[in-house]
Amino acid sequence: MQFDLTILGSNGAIPAHDRHPSAQILNYNGSLFLIDCGEGTQFRLNKFNIKRGRLDHIFISHLHGDHYFGLIGLLTSFNLNWRETPLHIYGPAGIEELMNVHFKHSQTQLKFQIHYHHVVADEPRVIYEDEVLQVETIILKHRLPTTGFYFKEKKGLRKILVEKIAEYKIPFRDITGIKKGADFTDENGRVVPNAELTTDPPEPRSYAYCSDTVYIDSFIEQIKGVGLLYHEATFADEHTARALETFHTTSRQAAEVAKHAKAGKLVIGHFSARYENLEPLLSQARGVFPETYLAREGTVFEI
Amino acid sequence: MQFDLTILGSNGAIPAHDRHPSAQILNYNGSLFLIDCGEGTQFRLNKFNIKRGRLDHIFISHLHGDHYFGLIGLLTSFNLNWRETPLHIYGPAGIEELMNVHFKHSQTQLKFQIHYHHVVADEPRVIYEDEVLQVETIILKHRLPTTGFYFKEKKGLRKILVEKIAEYKIPFRDITGIKKGADFTDENGRVVPNAELTTDPPEPRSYAYCSDTVYIDSFIEQIKGVGLLYHEATFADEHTARALETFHTTSRQAAEVAKHAKAGKLVIGHFSARYENLEPLLSQARGVFPETYLAREGTVFEI
Repeated sequence: MQFDLTILGSNGAIPAHDRHPSAQILNYNGSLFLIDCGEGTQFRLNKFNIKRGRLDHIFISHLHGDHYFGLIGLLTSFNLNWRETPLHIYGPAGIEELMNVHFKHSQTQLKFQIHYHHVVADEPRVIYEDEVLQVETIILKHRLPTTGFYFKEKKGLRKILVEKIAEYKIPFRDITGIKKGADFTDENGRVVPNAELTTDPPEPRSYAYCSDTVYIDSFIEQIKGVGLLYHEATFADEHTARALETFHTTSRQAAEVAKHAKAGKLVIGHFSARYENLEPLLSQARGVFPETYLAREGTVFEI
Repeated sequence: MQFDLTILGSNGAIPAHDRHPSAQILNYNGSLFLIDCGEGTQFRLNKFNIKRGRLDHIFISHLHGDHYFGLIGLLTSFNLNWRETPLHIYGPAGIEELMNVHFKHSQTQLKFQIHYHHVVADEPRVIYEDEVLQVETIILKHRLPTTGFYFKEKKGLRKILVEKIAEYKIPFRDITGIKKGADFTDENGRVVPNAELTTDPPEPRSYAYCSDTVYIDSFIEQIKGVGLLYHEATFADEHTARALETFHTTSRQAAEVAKHAKAGKLVIGHFSARYENLEPLLSQARGVFPETYLAREGTVFEI
């Protein structure tokens, strides 16, 4: 099952050095989830050939413009392209007013429904759930109410051993129960324990998006063992005071979060326009957490 | 005196083929005027190295998103870059509400003043004027109230002949009067007619921006003799009915406008996403008005 992340935009608030504001696409087995939607996101969906037909869920972390100014353009293009599938938007309640004032002035009649899911940044909540995946909010600390998003695969079913189906002549109707952990009782009343029939399911994979935030550790327990962590790293070491003042993080601090959360891999992004060269941010982070990577636009990270 | 136009975006409503929504920069002797501001305009100002410090006036034709979705991002970046110079925005009254709802949700305190000049699309009006230039609205016909913008140099001063200054010993204090057309009376009371002292000033240059609109001829008298005309050309001949239905123009119709207005040169833009190859639009227009050019992004047209 495909589960990967494509970076569309990785820069902080002021676009520079041909880097663009925050946006990324999570692909779970062909279903697309857009996380943040800075200005020009629709151009980068085009550039990286991402098919919008499979994009039904958009998550907005907070209402600083570099995280949502591209949303109205994307919605408008959906409409001009005759989208009919409903769209779900998860984020601060203000989004609805922001979009509606644009639709009002352009006299836009939407051809598809938008379901706004108002996210409150008070405590972690499950805001999305389907058969295989759920999304929890992560409470961050920024100048505006801000949440991260924690995408987790659900624990899968146990894997049944094909040769055991033949050996015990297990009928089709019992398969699902055994995958869920049941023992098998054959027609003679003999009980075969589940452990003989199945192996453990693969470990659930997970992805956490944390941007924007000052350096905090309050969500580390929540994301313990996360496979892939994206954490903002607006600043380098030399600007640690500035990070604190503006409620942002240094790359070294992002690496501390990854280390304590025992993450598999860390991707850093949301870089300040002052840095054309990002290598110092990367090496400062790697000093703490070697499995750190830069969020370069177009890069795809497997989860 | 420099007077030229740089195309930043030339596509219609749906971005495609690496073309972007409407935006252009008029440079008059170093002062910059931005005309329309589709999504991503700030990225293209960066790309083409256009210095925003000289940009104090922004003109918005109408409130379809492809003409203004980039405005909030540009204003926000001005603010993050500590702009202090006041900014003037000319366009439909709704712009002010649109910007303010964003500023409210992001809790933005602007460090510079924005003066909104509400433009009403009922009859041509002078909406901007300085010592050398004026801007009139052009009344267009689209699905929303829409105006074009007609930039005209003012008639310059007459050119004084240097050798006549020496010959008649014209004192410095009389120079401006003579440039304005006065005769010169020397210390003996002898009158030298202005015609002997000066030559005509250069013809005033002009630029007219007409987008979006259905094909109309009602503004042709107003812009008669315009040096450079930008006219939308969303469609090719084969979609003439569609142009009428959506209140847009074909490239051939744009060329008709240029021909009847006796324009010096025509630039066509606002191309529909359905055309990857724009050559048919260009050749259809040139059949009517040979001095037609495509608005390709990054192209600079001298006026």
